[in-house]
Amino acid sequence: MTGPSADPAEAPLATIAIVGLGLIGGSIALAARRRWPAVRIVAVDRADVVAEATARQVVDEASVDLTAVGGADLIVLAAPVGANPGLLSAIPHLVSGPALVTDTGGTKRSIMAAASGLPGRLTFIGGHPMAGGTGGGLGAARCDLFDGRPWLLTPAHGDEPAVGPLAAFVEGLGARAIVTEAATHDRVLAYVSHLPQMTASALMSVVGGRVGEEGLAWAGGGLADTTRLAASEAAIWRDVALANRDHLGEALDDLITALQALRRDLGSGSGIDRLFGSARAWRETLRRQGQSSPGEGTR
Amino acid sequence: MTGPSADPAEAPLATIAIVGLGLIGGSIALAARRRWPAVRIVAVDRADVVAEATARQVVDEASVDLTAVGGADLIVLAAPVGANPGLLSAIPHLVSGPALVTDTGGTKRSIMAAASGLPGRLTFIGGHPMAGGTGGGLGAARCDLFDGRPWLLTPAHGDEPAVGPLAAFVEGLGARAIVTEAATHDRVLAYVSHLPQMTASALMSVVGGRVGEEGLAWAGGGLADTTRLAASEAAIWRDVALANRDHLGEALDDLITALQALRRDLGSGSGIDRLFGSARAWRETLRRQGQSSPGEGTR
Repeated sequence: MTGPSADPAEAPLATIAIVGLGLIGGSIALAARRRWPAVRIVAVDRADVVAEATARQVVDEASVDLTAVGGADLIVLAAPVGANPGLLSAIPHLVSGPALVTDTGGTKRSIMAAASGLPGRLTFIGGHPMAGGTGGGLGAARCDLFDGRPWLLTPAHGDEPAVGPLAAFVEGLGARAIVTEAATHDRVLAYVSHLPQMTASALMSVVGGRVGEEGLAWAGGGLADTTRLAASEAAIWRDVALANRDHLGEALDDLITALQALRRDLGSGSGIDRLFGSARAWRETLRRQGQSSPGEGTR
Repeated sequence: MTGPSADPAEAPLATIAIVGLGLIGGSIALAARRRWPAVRIVAVDRADVVAEATARQVVDEASVDLTAVGGADLIVLAAPVGANPGLLSAIPHLVSGPALVTDTGGTKRSIMAAASGLPGRLTFIGGHPMAGGTGGGLGAARCDLFDGRPWLLTPAHGDEPAVGPLAAFVEGLGARAIVTEAATHDRVLAYVSHLPQMTASALMSVVGGRVGEEGLAWAGGGLADTTRLAASEAAIWRDVALANRDHLGEALDDLITALQALRRDLGSGSGIDRLFGSARAWRETLRRQGQSSPGEGTR
């Protein structure tokens, strides 16, 4: 494995292997090809995805066989959160030389624990690109998916020096590399990602169930924005909720408490003043950071 | 008052008066001028707004004096929900002939009750355009704000025949007129509008308070979408929550119950499967109706 190069056209890694060629894995392949035309990209997935990837020439080699990861400098596990630990345990048997291994899952403590048993020649650094979409699969992959987005990296204690090449790689894909601890990642993500997802789905389910199709036709753009995430698939989020159920449980309790306080004070208005004051100030912070939604300020 | 004309360039009303020239009132003026260049538009607001409206030639006449509404065929109360009942009670003293009166408030039962005491020459039909934005004021007004948006109209029992000219007016502004009862309006709106607003504000307040500015920098686009409404001002929503506190309270209870059930089932996954299944189906219904958010499907 070579270090990050001073020449931006030269790849910090010669061969990368991507296990799971969905929205995230496919976008990694496309973004890596965009930045480093000469890098060799190998991918592993189901037969139908392999056929699609081969037909579209998304990667240099696509296979249903996990042994294809054998010669890679960097192995990216981009399968669903629940599948990654099993894949990780197979890698020492398939890779004989030194390699950097990372993942793209939405929670980090469980995969870091699974990685602690890897042999010394394999360095695992957890990864989590803060990009995505409600549409999944290779068909939705885009080379610009990570442009400007945070990509959180969680090295185990002692592995911090190995972060450099991985940080150079994800920045080459267009992302902003941010290094943190797995425990901090999981606590913060429970609030900034998992809670909004659960809230959007609960809100959409309640509203649809109470007003039906006819009532939904009366909605303004606010309901559409607030429930955009409700189009997400359960499969991904079942794994995330299970792996992060302690922090997500606390986050749900916080939101429930805030809604109960608001409900008690509907008649007085003081609860709304307090809550909206705090919410507007934090929303302005989020907006200043450039995390604005596409329609920001126009509706 | 003349009926709706067969000539689309001819206004169904000769003179309209708008009380409150903010985002909604200002956009009504701009949209009416776009459609009917010859209609006379009179507006009443505070001195600073009158000065701005005069400088920008948004209306034919702007005044701080409510007596300016005297000669109008149609009077639109576009002040905050809490101010409209007081304005409504003054109108019989200022308008001697027949006139149609409407409002643009987000709840309808209270204003309909206030309107029940009007003399027979004045016909009040509640109105609620499902358009807006988190930025308020005349500066944010746009002639296309209502294009394609629902505009709910709530006549009192017996006043249904008078809806025609008002429906023609709001459709001339670009909206889709929908006639319903005030009680139905308030129940449905508690779910499709007021609950999403309260949810977005509660979520933003909780998330910001727990992770701070540094944690917000890790957020993906999902948090930004789900909390877009949190930029709304408390003043408007305090009035709405007070006027609709029975239905909004029920809606909050429903959401709290759904979140509590989700929280209980985090470990099993079955709760997530059930909730996400229902949420995805309703979200698809909303999307099919064209209520998609600006970034729909692109992130």
